[in-house]
Amino acid sequence: MSPAPRLIAVDWGTSRLRAMLVSSEGAILDQTAADEGIMAVPPGGFPDVLRRTLAPWLERHGRLPVMMAGMVGSRNGWIEAPYAACPASLDDLAARVVHVPFDGADVRLVPGLTWRDPGGTPDVMRGEETKIAGVGLATGTIVTPGTHSKWISIREGRIDAFVSFMTGEFYAALLGHTIIGRLAEAPEDPAGFDAGLAASRRHGGLTHQAFGARTSVLLGDMPGTWVGPYLSGLLIGSEIVNGLALDRPAGEIVVVADGVFGRNYARAFEVFGVPVRLLDPEDTFIAGLLRILERVEGRRA
Amino acid sequence: MSPAPRLIAVDWGTSRLRAMLVSSEGAILDQTAADEGIMAVPPGGFPDVLRRTLAPWLERHGRLPVMMAGMVGSRNGWIEAPYAACPASLDDLAARVVHVPFDGADVRLVPGLTWRDPGGTPDVMRGEETKIAGVGLATGTIVTPGTHSKWISIREGRIDAFVSFMTGEFYAALLGHTIIGRLAEAPEDPAGFDAGLAASRRHGGLTHQAFGARTSVLLGDMPGTWVGPYLSGLLIGSEIVNGLALDRPAGEIVVVADGVFGRNYARAFEVFGVPVRLLDPEDTFIAGLLRILERVEGRRA
Repeated sequence: MSPAPRLIAVDWGTSRLRAMLVSSEGAILDQTAADEGIMAVPPGGFPDVLRRTLAPWLERHGRLPVMMAGMVGSRNGWIEAPYAACPASLDDLAARVVHVPFDGADVRLVPGLTWRDPGGTPDVMRGEETKIAGVGLATGTIVTPGTHSKWISIREGRIDAFVSFMTGEFYAALLGHTIIGRLAEAPEDPAGFDAGLAASRRHGGLTHQAFGARTSVLLGDMPGTWVGPYLSGLLIGSEIVNGLALDRPAGEIVVVADGVFGRNYARAFEVFGVPVRLLDPEDTFIAGLLRILERVEGRRA
Repeated sequence: MSPAPRLIAVDWGTSRLRAMLVSSEGAILDQTAADEGIMAVPPGGFPDVLRRTLAPWLERHGRLPVMMAGMVGSRNGWIEAPYAACPASLDDLAARVVHVPFDGADVRLVPGLTWRDPGGTPDVMRGEETKIAGVGLATGTIVTPGTHSKWISIREGRIDAFVSFMTGEFYAALLGHTIIGRLAEAPEDPAGFDAGLAASRRHGGLTHQAFGARTSVLLGDMPGTWVGPYLSGLLIGSEIVNGLALDRPAGEIVVVADGVFGRNYARAFEVFGVPVRLLDPEDTFIAGLLRILERVEGRRA
């Protein structure tokens, strides 16, 4: 007999909608995914999409708590869940959870976080706060690689500060729309990744070392199959150089990533001689929603 | 009576062909320009394009020296003029000038330059070497802003070393193909440029501070009309921060730029408190070709 479902976890981002039926231990009992990210939902269409997605589970298991996180809580989503400001504890996050009117289930939305660095530059996240809650770190740094990679400082269990890097988006824009991309050849050779990592620690910065890929191919120093991995190594290396230089707490570095991101960041930190612990994004997402739900229900009780 | 023509100066780049009839003092007596860059010339078509372009001048003035510089000397151009290696003097450049077979005129091609930095990363230029020759600096730094901006170290009259920055190409790729560009509004407000300059000196590097444009607009800190100029200021500021940190000779900094580039770089250096001398790219290009021609004819004599 399978364990009883405790929660429906919904990760509703810009391009994808994922829903998971989850036990109180965080086991996934059932799941579904579709290309119904918030950009694909017509105005006013969010309740219908969610109803259709959850119908089989609600029919079978009755009124379950539904916890949503991600861009569904943004200005372009279903309901805007105002950002909570850092520093923020798990209780602060729970206190800002937004109740979403919906027939047949208690639907809630986890708010994103905002932080303003000492120079005055603001930063925002939506979705990562849930993974952070799931890591359950007391003091240290959490890195969430991606399109807009984030380095999050945790002090005494609170999310203290964070910094975003456009690593993934720079990679796509530069490979797709500069002279670098026109030199890239398939199949990719991972040796280029380490070359890019090494370049990220040399002089001149990103716009100089990126040009190095072009000149190296031109002069026969580098095969075209290195170009894509080189750019990836350069950008990830640059993120790590800048991330390590931030004002960060002592304590371990936890990287929340799987697949190509997980392999690349693990390799990069290894080459840089910095030990990290790698955690699965799905596990931490589910654990985070369970923890936030516990706090929300505790508040209500 | 107008002065006698001394030279036909040809700036033949990737997208444009420009030719100027020039006096020995560097005055432009006549000129023509067309969208007949090397990418628009069919295989084997270079002699015909040049003949058609120069015909009126050659008919009227007879056999004039023609000096070409730019991508016309690259692998995808008319004839590949092998790169000269730095350090390179004006005499070294003149010795590597390539004679191009052509009926009715002495056509020559100025070679590009290559340099390998201490870390082993190679760098290349084509066209800038001619402007550098035209500046005639003894010791100091020359900056040539553009798609692939370059910082050139001059020591005792020789081109000693140089470093490229993909400033212009990053700007186009990021503004055209990331979330930053989707937030940009017209008409541009130049106040954003200074904000980007300030951001280039703050923590986190380019991929973090670029994200600052997105979050600042999202949180109402910055109007959309600042976004384009902010990105420009951030990239130019980042180039200058990295350029000033290079191992450079003492002596003045000369910036070879006009138009928007000239205004932006002059403003950036002013904000950074670094005095520079601004020179016109066309004047320096013509002066460079005249100087190199003098050396070439001196060698032949």
